[in-house]
Amino acid sequence: MSEELIRVGVLGARGRMGAQAVGAVDGAADLDLVAALDAGDDLAALVDAKAQVVVDFTHPDAVMDNLRFAIDAGVHAVVGTTGFDQDRLRTVTGWLGAKPELGVLIAPNFALGAVLAMRFAQQAARFYESAEVIELHHNRKADAPSGTAAHTAQLISQARTDAGLAPGSDATTSEMAGARGANVGDVRVHSVRLPGLVAHEEILFGAEGETLTIRHDSMDRSSFMPGVLLGVRAVRTRPGLTVGLEHVLEL
Amino acid sequence: MSEELIRVGVLGARGRMGAQAVGAVDGAADLDLVAALDAGDDLAALVDAKAQVVVDFTHPDAVMDNLRFAIDAGVHAVVGTTGFDQDRLRTVTGWLGAKPELGVLIAPNFALGAVLAMRFAQQAARFYESAEVIELHHNRKADAPSGTAAHTAQLISQARTDAGLAPGSDATTSEMAGARGANVGDVRVHSVRLPGLVAHEEILFGAEGETLTIRHDSMDRSSFMPGVLLGVRAVRTRPGLTVGLEHVLEL
Amino acid sequence: MSEELIRVGVLGARGRMGAQAVGAVDGAADLDLVAALDAGDDLAALVDAKAQVVVDFTHPDAVMDNLRFAIDAGVHAVVGTTGFDQDRLRTVTGWLGAKPELGVLIAPNFALGAVLAMRFAQQAARFYESAEVIELHHNRKADAPSGTAAHTAQLISQARTDAGLAPGSDATTSEMAGARGANVGDVRVHSVRLPGLVAHEEILFGAEGETLTIRHDSMDRSSFMPGVLLGVRAVRTRPGLTVGLEHVLEL
Amino acid sequence: MSEELIRVGVLGARGRMGAQAVGAVDGAADLDLVAALDAGDDLAALVDAKAQVVVDFTHPDAVMDNLRFAIDAGVHAVVGTTGFDQDRLRTVTGWLGAKPELGVLIAPNFALGAVLAMRFAQQAARFYESAEVIELHHNRKADAPSGTAAHTAQLISQARTDAGLAPGSDATTSEMAGARGANVGDVRVHSVRLPGLVAHEEILFGAEGETLTIRHDSMDRSSFMPGVLLGVRAVRTRPGLTVGLEHVLEL
Repeated sequence: MSEELIRVGVLGARGRMGAQAVGAVDGAADLDLVAALDAGDDLAALVDAKAQVVVDFTHPDAVMDNLRFAIDAGVHAVVGTTGFDQDRLRTVTGWLGAKPELGVLIAPNFALGAVLAMRFAQQAARFYESAEVIELHHNRKADAPSGTAAHTAQLISQARTDAGLAPGSDATTSEMAGARGANVGDVRVHSVRLPGLVAHEEILFGAEGETLTIRHDSMDRSSFMPGVLLGVRAVRTRPGLTVGLEHVLEL
Repeated sequence: MSEELIRVGVLGARGRMGAQAVGAVDGAADLDLVAALDAGDDLAALVDAKAQVVVDFTHPDAVMDNLRFAIDAGVHAVVGTTGFDQDRLRTVTGWLGAKPELGVLIAPNFALGAVLAMRFAQQAARFYESAEVIELHHNRKADAPSGTAAHTAQLISQARTDAGLAPGSDATTSEMAGARGANVGDVRVHSVRLPGLVAHEEILFGAEGETLTIRHDSMDRSSFMPGVLLGVRAVRTRPGLTVGLEHVLEL
Repeated sequence: MSEELIRVGVLGARGRMGAQAVGAVDGAADLDLVAALDAGDDLAALVDAKAQVVVDFTHPDAVMDNLRFAIDAGVHAVVGTTGFDQDRLRTVTGWLGAKPELGVLIAPNFALGAVLAMRFAQQAARFYESAEVIELHHNRKADAPSGTAAHTAQLISQARTDAGLAPGSDATTSEMAGARGANVGDVRVHSVRLPGLVAHEEILFGAEGETLTIRHDSMDRSSFMPGVLLGVRAVRTRPGLTVGLEHVLEL
Repeated sequence: MSEELIRVGVLGARGRMGAQAVGAVDGAADLDLVAALDAGDDLAALVDAKAQVVVDFTHPDAVMDNLRFAIDAGVHAVVGTTGFDQDRLRTVTGWLGAKPELGVLIAPNFALGAVLAMRFAQQAARFYESAEVIELHHNRKADAPSGTAAHTAQLISQARTDAGLAPGSDATTSEMAGARGANVGDVRVHSVRLPGLVAHEEILFGAEGETLTIRHDSMDRSSFMPGVLLGVRAVRTRPGLTVGLEHVLEL
């Protein structure tokens, strides 16, 4: 009773991710879904509904206007819409200058497991002689490696460089083209594509006599929702712009 | 040139682990192996050799005398010998009271991968509805589950309790005895025993639509040496008693 | 052109599995979906449509009448409906006595991967000192172990007995209750339950210096359809009663 | 009592594999180690010792003379020495023409698990839309992919072709060079190299809604001995030349 619910509005409510977010907010005992809007709806409904936090899963063409509106109206924002480059991030930071109490969280990936896997990989990197990444996806995926795997490999490679590690040794002298995967920094990345797979990432670290493996298996986009809810709960106490869910996990 | 080598002595130098430690210290570019002693040798050799750090892989019957000697002589200590209960730890803390600049690191497990796996498991625990542990060992192992797996499950269960999570739901109504494993707190632990296996631990976390798996594979005891060397390098700048390698990993 | 399509009717066409079967038959280039019936529909439609094979995903209460009708009408049958005990199988065999050219295939499991995994496990069993099974399912499953895992373990145990192998050695002297899993013959079975999992089975064999693992991951019931189609194509050339998809795989 | 032991001689008895074979034969209850010879020893000792089967782990330069001698002396042979091309196999077949009751088994791989994995892969291949192979080895290995993985992929690709399957679909349009592995027929092969690994092979098959994985982990060369012993027991009842352990497994 004494605990007040957080009043949440969702933008892009009829899209794939937005609809999931509507359901997730609606199902959370500590949140109150006060608005569910989509393209064409008047954003003023957010204000009328006294939304405290807005969740945006809309479109790169719409998200900046939505953020401008939310910040002006004093509403915190959790954003899963893509398309944020440095210019856009600077613009949002500028807008927030006038509202120092407001928080905006922009996250390219709300899958807790993927974010944790990346974070642990970064932490483990400096303790191992070398690392490789295998990502496995369904055979309809257009890019190889996946963005998450490439990003993971970059984080590991950077952590290795920061720790002053030499590139992992590799005795390969005879290679059939492609066998050893793609180079991302000094980390090899391998992409498996098969029907029946969904989205999986495996990060392998090796040292004398032992290996450490971190694996994330994602079955469907419902797996993004715990991360979204975590963001909604955290954004009100994190003024300013935060980029990346990892910063609100408080590991 | 300017960088001075750390002068290291090893006690239990002819034992299985001690011999590995002798080799590891000898092979490290920043360390200087100045003494390698075993039962019957005079500890005064440590002082004569101006050892700065002593590594102890001896026996529960010998380790307390060794530590007493090292602390009196102003030598830091890294201890892999087992048998430390609360009484012994209090005694060591007492001895260190007179030497506030000295560091003693006592670690039940020097396998970096096992320590990292436990640490990550602890960090991930509060984000998942439930967790289970599978440990797999050769068929000559006497205890099930392994100490590491039981300890991992305890850490996860504690982290879940601290975060206010309810026990993971389980719809099992019909169980063949033992199928669902052993209960350690609210974490189920499964022990596989097969010839051909060495020592493996797999920690599984599950939430709606995704799983996160952390796996450690240990092939032989050479895998403990990077952790020992890390301890040797860290102990001089960590005054007082430290229990557990995880505290020197600075994650 | 010259190749004629196989004319197929589906019973239980509005059920979960039946609806999948309707779609799968409809989508197969060599099959012609000529009837899709459900409870209340007249089976005579099968005859009117000149069905050559009927697929039955109905109910234990309905399937025997359906089979009686199909056999009388000279229609081959592929049956995924459950509830067949020895009595029922004898009855079907009796009916088939009057129609020696007709084939009936009854399969408890149409997942090709599960059937292959069991078959390979059976073949590998006699080469290994011991074997264990881990099955992993979502946390809404009521029984532990799964029927498939229990059946797999029985097949392995039987193959080991047939080959004159002694039970796998196990040095466990100190066990926390349940850690070593359930005994099915001389094979230990472990059941993991977590949200985010779907249906997975892992069969592990161990011998000196090596392990062999066979794993099947099933994401949804669409995975049963290739097995159903295989059955439809094979049943016309396999007169009499066949129980189990493994017999039509021709491994 | 009534069961006579098989009399076995080992050639190359002081080599790495030969020494293992000496120990394995010596330890087998149904075998009698009657000779253990190495370079420089007189092969006549085999005859003096009444060896029935000879195991050859010598050198490509020596093995043909050894086989010539064994066949002339009426001794069956099990050969793990490498370097057999078509010419050599034809020569051995020619020699055996004069001794129709003698058996010679030449096997490039005596690891039962590897041979079983390849066999199962071959059997499973035609049931799946596509397949990929991941092999993982220590970072001292010079070739990528491993010979076993390349051979496995060839077997799968051939089985797919024999079954009339189209190449597995792959929607990759944007690839970082090497990410999708090496092409062996229509099977992609990925090679991971890390310290801490030994020798591992994983074969993945995918179809709508499911995957099947066959994995072999090899820890050390002791794992080859069960295959050698199996060969010794089988070769006396398999007259003529047999190439490949798979033919004596009777799957």
